Amino acid sequence: MAGKHRQTCSIAGFLNLFGDAWSLMIVREALYGSTRFSEFQRNTGAARNLLSERLSTLVAHGILEKVDVGTVGARHAYHITPKGESLRPLMAAIILWSNEHLYPDGQAPNSVIHRQTGAELEGLDDLLNPALGDSRCKVAAGPGASAAARKRLGSLE
Amino acid sequence: MAGKHRQTCSIAGFLNLFGDAWSLMIVREALYGSTRFSEFQRNTGAARNLLSERLSTLVAHGILEKVDVGTVGARHAYHITPKGESLRPLMAAIILWSNEHLYPDGQAPNSVIHRQTGAELEGLDDLLNPALGDSRCKVAAGPGASAAARKRLGSLE
Repeated sequence: MAGKHRQTCSIAGFLNLFGDAWSLMIVREALYGSTRFSEFQRNTGAARNLLSERLSTLVAHGILEKVDVGTVGARHAYHITPKGESLRPLMAAIILWSNEHLYPDGQAPNSVIHRQTGAELEGLDDLLNPALGDSRCKVAAGPGASAAARKRLGSLE
Repeated sequence: MAGKHRQTCSIAGFLNLFGDAWSLMIVREALYGSTRFSEFQRNTGAARNLLSERLSTLVAHGILEKVDVGTVGARHAYHITPKGESLRPLMAAIILWSNEHLYPDGQAPNSVIHRQTGAELEGLDDLLNPALGDSRCKVAAGPGASAAARKRLGSLE
């Protein structure tokens, strides 16, 4: 990833790492258990050079760990790190939003299932803390906000 | 967006719409209240032709609505739709993940605040339903899964 954004913004920071068509597909694969280059290639459909570049970026940012598995042919494996694992609820949120808004009823490609009960989450609301209520959240300037962002975000509803 | 992915996958579907460095920046702006082309341009830093293309795509997918405001100069406004509004908790999740994992302590650019109480959400966990517990969720094949995905996802832990 080029890291296109210079803005001090948590969304921009995320997009500097994941703002492309492939990085989250690779994370998906790692969370599904893929570890080898050939598995990532087969399961995402990414071109070799693109996949190689994205894997290196994800390793550099600590989302994946590159492990030398010491055999000839496919010498390296890519393992998901705790930082990568921490993306799991975000991926669940994306799937649930996507199912609600991009697919007709009954045609959702993926389901999100509660591990312990086996119950299917019916929508993004099921993933969210009900204590937050309907009006939920707004965004404000954080401790690391620029002066410009602080001024702007301070006036938001 | 080119819509690069042909896979029947809720993540791929999301990335076909939002898998670039700019679309979620534009959604961010719309959620912050920007409506005019010049506002989106100034606040995202996107080039005119790119911004124009992304706005059209977001309108085509019902995330924004293009409204003729009938004055010369800046004749159109872009309003966030209910479908676009529904991205708000997903944006909050992105900000919270980003703050936890991409910035040093005390340097988060944005905060997420509960509208009613004014309390700051300290991390992604605060946004998630505590009833789901720690092991939370797994992904399974949905009703619209391809046969290949069904075979593959059926075996997921």
